[in-house]
Amino acid sequence: MRRRFEEIEEELKNRLLHMGSLAEEMIHLAVTGLFERTDKFIQQVFDREKEVNKLHIEVDDRCLKLLALYQPASSDLRFIMAAVKINSDLERIGDQAVNVTQTSQFFIHNPPLEKKLFDIPRMAQLATQMLKESLDAFVNKDVELARMVMTRDSEEDELKRGAFNDLLKLMQSDPSTIQRALGLILISRNLERIADHATNIAEDVIFMVLGKDIRHHAEDETEENRIPGS
Amino acid sequence: MRRRFEEIEEELKNRLLHMGSLAEEMIHLAVTGLFERTDKFIQQVFDREKEVNKLHIEVDDRCLKLLALYQPASSDLRFIMAAVKINSDLERIGDQAVNVTQTSQFFIHNPPLEKKLFDIPRMAQLATQMLKESLDAFVNKDVELARMVMTRDSEEDELKRGAFNDLLKLMQSDPSTIQRALGLILISRNLERIADHATNIAEDVIFMVLGKDIRHHAEDETEENRIPGS
Repeated sequence: MRRRFEEIEEELKNRLLHMGSLAEEMIHLAVTGLFERTDKFIQQVFDREKEVNKLHIEVDDRCLKLLALYQPASSDLRFIMAAVKINSDLERIGDQAVNVTQTSQFFIHNPPLEKKLFDIPRMAQLATQMLKESLDAFVNKDVELARMVMTRDSEEDELKRGAFNDLLKLMQSDPSTIQRALGLILISRNLERIADHATNIAEDVIFMVLGKDIRHHAEDETEENRIPGS
Repeated sequence: MRRRFEEIEEELKNRLLHMGSLAEEMIHLAVTGLFERTDKFIQQVFDREKEVNKLHIEVDDRCLKLLALYQPASSDLRFIMAAVKINSDLERIGDQAVNVTQTSQFFIHNPPLEKKLFDIPRMAQLATQMLKESLDAFVNKDVELARMVMTRDSEEDELKRGAFNDLLKLMQSDPSTIQRALGLILISRNLERIADHATNIAEDVIFMVLGKDIRHHAEDETEENRIPGS
């Protein structure tokens, strides 16, 4: 029975890792479309989203089965609870990548901006790294790596604030850029939300490993909307 | 043993309802501050957020205990899984209300716009109603009401798109409004995300009652970022 539980646990881990790689690919395809000013990756993003959504339902279903059949306790139970939550976060990361692709459509079919993408490429790179590391931390039960992910989140917030300030100045100095700059602001927020989801995953890993809740200790978890100068 | 489980289940429900009322109050205080152009409610929003965060940890903890001690099956198990997810959604609704308050700070300390708040009041009212109804559906295991909440979500999306179009036009016709209009766009997105969380809750209720997964059937779940004209 124990052996069978471990097999299903392993399979669950693999499914979550697979969802994670699909989500990573979606972010990569979405931002590459934006950087290269092409819409040739859209279909690939949508295809992966379908797959992520299918896995999302499967993982939840498997977690329920594990709970019902094996009535796990302590660390096994915390593992399943973490899996349920990580599953939601991965699915929402996929949604954010789709949003990036959709906003990009408007952006790339209009003339490029002089300073093209501000801090968006760095934001995308950092969010992807956070996602990857948070899942590595999950499979390896690596608390230190999970803590590292949480540190990187403030860097992402900083980049988002910088991009926001730059884009606001651009809109104000040249109103013909308003719609495009607004598109980039929305994309930077999608990327920041991806980083937030990775941070949630990291928190779940720490809870899973240590059995200790470290949420709601950060001071800055809700300042996403701060308008510069306010 | 069964009786004790039901007591804890009832207590869990009450805690989630209490979180729901706190979240509702937070939205109400946040938008009232915006409508009445006052910052006198900020502290009340923050106080409630602290309480919501405390309950968030408590509910998760209780769900783990229920699972570990009673090894529930079928509908009891689905109830606890729903509680875990609803708990996350309520906590994130609280975060969104805090974001509304913070963005409002900039808005209300600058001259009012001619057409003051576009569809924001209606969006706030609808999102609050969806939150309330989704929790009513949860405690009464009311699938019909949960379905109603899901229908209302497209109305909220429509309002958000309308507000976005109006605010974009305003920015383009009068660049002195850019920063304030941007603030309202962000607030309308916070309200739409609250409606999304209420929709998640409604989906969880349907799964809890019917044991049937109805997620990922909606066509429009990821078009949040669509730029008009794209």
